[in-house]
Amino acid sequence: MSRGRMEAFSDGVLAIIITIMVLKLNAPKEITIEALKEIIPIFVSYVVSFIYVGIYWGNHHHLVSAISSVSGRIMWRNLHWLFWMSLLPFATEWTGMDPFADLPAFTYGFVLLMCAISYHMLQAAIIKQKGPESCLQKSIGNDFKGKVSIFCYALGTAMSFVHPLVAYGLYMAIAVLWFIPDTRLECYIHRQED
Amino acid sequence: MSRGRMEAFSDGVLAIIITIMVLKLNAPKEITIEALKEIIPIFVSYVVSFIYVGIYWGNHHHLVSAISSVSGRIMWRNLHWLFWMSLLPFATEWTGMDPFADLPAFTYGFVLLMCAISYHMLQAAIIKQKGPESCLQKSIGNDFKGKVSIFCYALGTAMSFVHPLVAYGLYMAIAVLWFIPDTRLECYIHRQED
Amino acid sequence: MSRGRMEAFSDGVLAIIITIMVLKLNAPKEITIEALKEIIPIFVSYVVSFIYVGIYWGNHHHLVSAISSVSGRIMWRNLHWLFWMSLLPFATEWTGMDPFADLPAFTYGFVLLMCAISYHMLQAAIIKQKGPESCLQKSIGNDFKGKVSIFCYALGTAMSFVHPLVAYGLYMAIAVLWFIPDTRLECYIHRQED
Amino acid sequence: MSRGRMEAFSDGVLAIIITIMVLKLNAPKEITIEALKEIIPIFVSYVVSFIYVGIYWGNHHHLVSAISSVSGRIMWRNLHWLFWMSLLPFATEWTGMDPFADLPAFTYGFVLLMCAISYHMLQAAIIKQKGPESCLQKSIGNDFKGKVSIFCYALGTAMSFVHPLVAYGLYMAIAVLWFIPDTRLECYIHRQED
Repeated sequence: MSRGRMEAFSDGVLAIIITIMVLKLNAPKEITIEALKEIIPIFVSYVVSFIYVGIYWGNHHHLVSAISSVSGRIMWRNLHWLFWMSLLPFATEWTGMDPFADLPAFTYGFVLLMCAISYHMLQAAIIKQKGPESCLQKSIGNDFKGKVSIFCYALGTAMSFVHPLVAYGLYMAIAVLWFIPDTRLECYIHRQED
Repeated sequence: MSRGRMEAFSDGVLAIIITIMVLKLNAPKEITIEALKEIIPIFVSYVVSFIYVGIYWGNHHHLVSAISSVSGRIMWRNLHWLFWMSLLPFATEWTGMDPFADLPAFTYGFVLLMCAISYHMLQAAIIKQKGPESCLQKSIGNDFKGKVSIFCYALGTAMSFVHPLVAYGLYMAIAVLWFIPDTRLECYIHRQED
Repeated sequence: MSRGRMEAFSDGVLAIIITIMVLKLNAPKEITIEALKEIIPIFVSYVVSFIYVGIYWGNHHHLVSAISSVSGRIMWRNLHWLFWMSLLPFATEWTGMDPFADLPAFTYGFVLLMCAISYHMLQAAIIKQKGPESCLQKSIGNDFKGKVSIFCYALGTAMSFVHPLVAYGLYMAIAVLWFIPDTRLECYIHRQED
Repeated sequence: MSRGRMEAFSDGVLAIIITIMVLKLNAPKEITIEALKEIIPIFVSYVVSFIYVGIYWGNHHHLVSAISSVSGRIMWRNLHWLFWMSLLPFATEWTGMDPFADLPAFTYGFVLLMCAISYHMLQAAIIKQKGPESCLQKSIGNDFKGKVSIFCYALGTAMSFVHPLVAYGLYMAIAVLWFIPDTRLECYIHRQED
């Protein structure tokens, strides 16, 4: 299987995920400021989920560009990751119904946790294919960021039952963590300069 | 017609099918564990359908990568297969309404049956184009797996009226059958090694 | 502008159109044969529209493969055609509500008419770019099929108010007319043989 | 990151945006001329938004074709622009509910304003990468059209509270302004002629 078609399929699914979330963002039923205010929570959920899909899309691109051929294992781990990503619109919608409720905060965190774990599994399969001396392995290192994220998502799901806003704070903090450019891809940049 | 555009179009349709199924997975109306439990059947349906689309996507990629030019016959058989695939979200949604009802189990099985038959027709058209000595023909052989699947789907639709869960068990068994890596593509692997 | 990106965008829009029609095909509200029967009209509408999109997709591929660069005129005529195509799900849904009503039959025919006219305009712009001696011009000739279709759609919209089923019969007859392989592309086949 | 994948992803998102707007265009509930008349406002909104997405798609293609590699900055500014574009279906739907209401007119204008600003930011990042002597910088110049558009959108949002139709008139005028072919790409045309 060629890399190109897996990229195209993943891009297609991610493009649809990012866009159908907005389908859940129905226009307010009435034309008043109050009706507009009511959709603020779901709008905020949409913004956060949009950023998450954007971050994953960028990282996925880098990860997949490292491989030359797609084995069955990589194909299925990629689909597994896309499966959890595809649940983001569902979790986003529920979250937006009541930002102070514990169950949606837990569900949202659980979906983010599974996205991170399945992405980590995909990454591990690709690193295994490339070998420990590969540029990919060097640039990811011990994947400190990935491990911190998984820990924080797990913590967030637990905190949902203490106070949902603490959970959401954690989820947003991780988004910020990934948003900041890092030095993980220096190996690639050096390689291009040579 | 070039192969590239048929692949791109098929990928697009499959990506949308796999993603719009989750659109049917509306957030629970209330924020309770009970409301979350109520969507378990549709969630299970979604998982099974997601796996089916994933399996077909992988197989379709291998099948289509064998052809060089797309005849009108292949184009229409591909569209015919996509048509039945496009009914999966509909069948999935109905199945999720009541997992113990016979009609949705029958409908779901019928859609899977037609997907398998139309895929078999597409495969036959491509094999005919490639000739009996082709790598594709050798790797597929007498298509034992394909024939068993069609038989089991037909059996499943009949069993729906005896007991729906027997039908669903059959559908899942076939998904597992396709999930296990097989030796059908050895010809290609050997060819690449030479 | 490159041809590739216009093709990719058109393919994307057509893939979505063909797939979102099935989103309108909601699962029956009850689990009875009667509820299943009630969705037969919309299912038939879906099948016909699916075939139409398939035919257009195939023809569009041939048409666009003839051009090398995309002018602003071709880009806008392509978008104009996609606009009318994008109304097919809307017309299909309404048609399925009552197959014996005149207004939906008229609307469906009107959308098909505008699709045909806008496609004809796109074709004219591409032929103009390629010149009267081009393979495309020769293979399309005086576009008898295209003109018959436009006439029949116009007739169909008028017949909707006499008897909707006559209109639907006309729309299906034109689909069959396009479905039958024709000799219009012989020029290309000869060129490839040389 | 390669340009190709960013183009493909943007095309995918724009294709979905342009198509899901029609999903909001539900078939009239009753089969009467009155019910058809009721959807005229949302239909007009759909037409205007379709034209806007078409204009942006064409311009985005030109802009992005100028770059060779995609930096993190360009990737995020592209996603930022796609975010505001993705709110068009939402704004379009609300606008169509009542064309004489002020809040939807304001919201629609605000989304258009943010699309224009985020597009301008993307453009600035690409120009910065290409340098002040680049063909892109010369063809865009001081971006008079872009600045006029941003001013008119801002004016439109303010005018929404005076009279919504004045605001809509402004939004349509800007669409017409962009629809007219301009001389901004002459540099490219000359370069190709050399």
